[in-house]
Amino acid sequence: MKVVVDIFGGDNSPDALVKGSLDAMTEIKNLEIVMVGDSDKIKAELDKYKHDDKRIEIFDAKDVITNDDVPTMAIKTKKESSLVKALELLDSRDDTCGLVSAGSTGAVLTGGIFKVKRLDGINRPALAPVLPTKTGGNVCLIDCGANVDCRPEFLTQFAVMGSCYMKAVYGIENPRVGLVSVGVEDKKGNELTKEVFKVLKEMPINFVGNMEARDALSGNYDVLVCDGFVGNVLLKTAEGTAGMVMSMMKKAIMSSASAKFGALFMKKAFKKLKYDMDYNTRGGAPFLGVRKIIVKAHGGSNDVAVKAAVMQTVKMAENNLVDNIRRELNALQNNE
Amino acid sequence: MKVVVDIFGGDNSPDALVKGSLDAMTEIKNLEIVMVGDSDKIKAELDKYKHDDKRIEIFDAKDVITNDDVPTMAIKTKKESSLVKALELLDSRDDTCGLVSAGSTGAVLTGGIFKVKRLDGINRPALAPVLPTKTGGNVCLIDCGANVDCRPEFLTQFAVMGSCYMKAVYGIENPRVGLVSVGVEDKKGNELTKEVFKVLKEMPINFVGNMEARDALSGNYDVLVCDGFVGNVLLKTAEGTAGMVMSMMKKAIMSSASAKFGALFMKKAFKKLKYDMDYNTRGGAPFLGVRKIIVKAHGGSNDVAVKAAVMQTVKMAENNLVDNIRRELNALQNNE
Repeated sequence: MKVVVDIFGGDNSPDALVKGSLDAMTEIKNLEIVMVGDSDKIKAELDKYKHDDKRIEIFDAKDVITNDDVPTMAIKTKKESSLVKALELLDSRDDTCGLVSAGSTGAVLTGGIFKVKRLDGINRPALAPVLPTKTGGNVCLIDCGANVDCRPEFLTQFAVMGSCYMKAVYGIENPRVGLVSVGVEDKKGNELTKEVFKVLKEMPINFVGNMEARDALSGNYDVLVCDGFVGNVLLKTAEGTAGMVMSMMKKAIMSSASAKFGALFMKKAFKKLKYDMDYNTRGGAPFLGVRKIIVKAHGGSNDVAVKAAVMQTVKMAENNLVDNIRRELNALQNNE
Repeated sequence: MKVVVDIFGGDNSPDALVKGSLDAMTEIKNLEIVMVGDSDKIKAELDKYKHDDKRIEIFDAKDVITNDDVPTMAIKTKKESSLVKALELLDSRDDTCGLVSAGSTGAVLTGGIFKVKRLDGINRPALAPVLPTKTGGNVCLIDCGANVDCRPEFLTQFAVMGSCYMKAVYGIENPRVGLVSVGVEDKKGNELTKEVFKVLKEMPINFVGNMEARDALSGNYDVLVCDGFVGNVLLKTAEGTAGMVMSMMKKAIMSSASAKFGALFMKKAFKKLKYDMDYNTRGGAPFLGVRKIIVKAHGGSNDVAVKAAVMQTVKMAENNLVDNIRRELNALQNNE
């Protein structure tokens, strides 16, 4: 099992990327890593930790793509960047099973499509992060920003890919797929979702109907399907609101002496809450619909997040996610 | 100042509607209420409280529109319903300044358009609830579900109406208008928002650019403009996430004895937090763009929410909201 890691993407590169990769290797004994980026800096970072040289390959790439670069331009012109090199490696070498990058989302998505290519039958690959639910479970939100303008067939393909992903990585046998809408009734929705609803109802997936955004994190759904604009709004509203409630709580506590005293006894409870809500423990968002596994880790990922993203990549590979998506899509198309 | 109240809409009718109306009358000395609905039941409810008969008019209407009714059908056929009667009263009598209903959202919106009519120059009236922000302020989200498929000119009109509303009711001199998008950069967005962005930039409002949904409740915006599908997803995701965080916190507290002990000292702080986040204290969502003031209160409104909605209606009337919207729209159209 060999995973390519773009060591020079994200706010905490190279340290969090190197450390996270090594920690994943400690966890998974047959894991090897190809580290792509400035080799001198990678070596200097590696020297800080005990590690097994035989399981690490360093691939030199001196340039870096940043969030200020225009994605399509950067992928075309920054040929020596760690991301472009990493993508080319992933595409050309059969011994690699996937790629992790915490770099510019736009560049990872554009690069994924240009360098690794779409799967046959997929119109648009999609970004599919997983969020925590009220019941302690997980829900996959697809698409989350890769495609802001969608046709109905894009969303029906998202439904298939999201289902395959939740099966492969979370072991959910028959993922419940909901369509993000403005109410649960069958007739609710806009022009796009009404078209999608009709098709999803006939597809061999576990489509449970329209979902009202209030229930996104209820635990009643395993996959939420929407266009990338709506998915992005949903994801970021959830993040922003969680942050706001926490900060309002902090303010309420700090404004009262007895509450401050009480909070001393709740440190562990608060810590657990923070952990449950922390994206760092959840790895990254897979970019589904391309010919190999690509996981986009959060730009602010620390070593814990990088480790989780690498382990998630291995899990997707072990469970043949790409082949499963290919097969289910073929079955669907032969069915039509 | 005379406000029409649909006493038989919402989960808590007639009691919360009657009590809330009376409480608003206690607060505002020159307020009169026209209560619409089953007159016997209204009288029985009124008898429970000290009240001034001279300031209350009862208008009999025996039928009720429920959430199970199809809105357009119900408005056409349930001519004796409290909502239809209330809307007709509002439209026909010059001495009434606005209407409050906690009934079916679809019926209130449809009825508003059919019975009270759109303002000249408005393509689509919009629902514009106000949410609490992190900094203790308020932000108006327009549209929030009345129009799930929008053309660019609908959104630019929403921007004008939202601005007028935040000026009139919250006294904000130069409301900061943000366009809900997938990033703050000027070029981010989907086909619709990119068109809208260009127009908003040229308009005589305080347009501050694209907004990422993570910042919806940041306090950096006074008005958020979006189509009704996106607005509905944003609003309900915020509600759902706030609920989830609170319930996760409760669980974390209950799972630890010391945290439970600590929580005893935080009751007041939690209560304040709950109050700040409670929609009942915020009144209802105005339906902007029709010829008179209509406020849709939450279906689950209690007497506190009804009181707030009635007082909000009075404030909108006192500040000539409808005339202001009319004037600003005219100025805009003469400018083109």
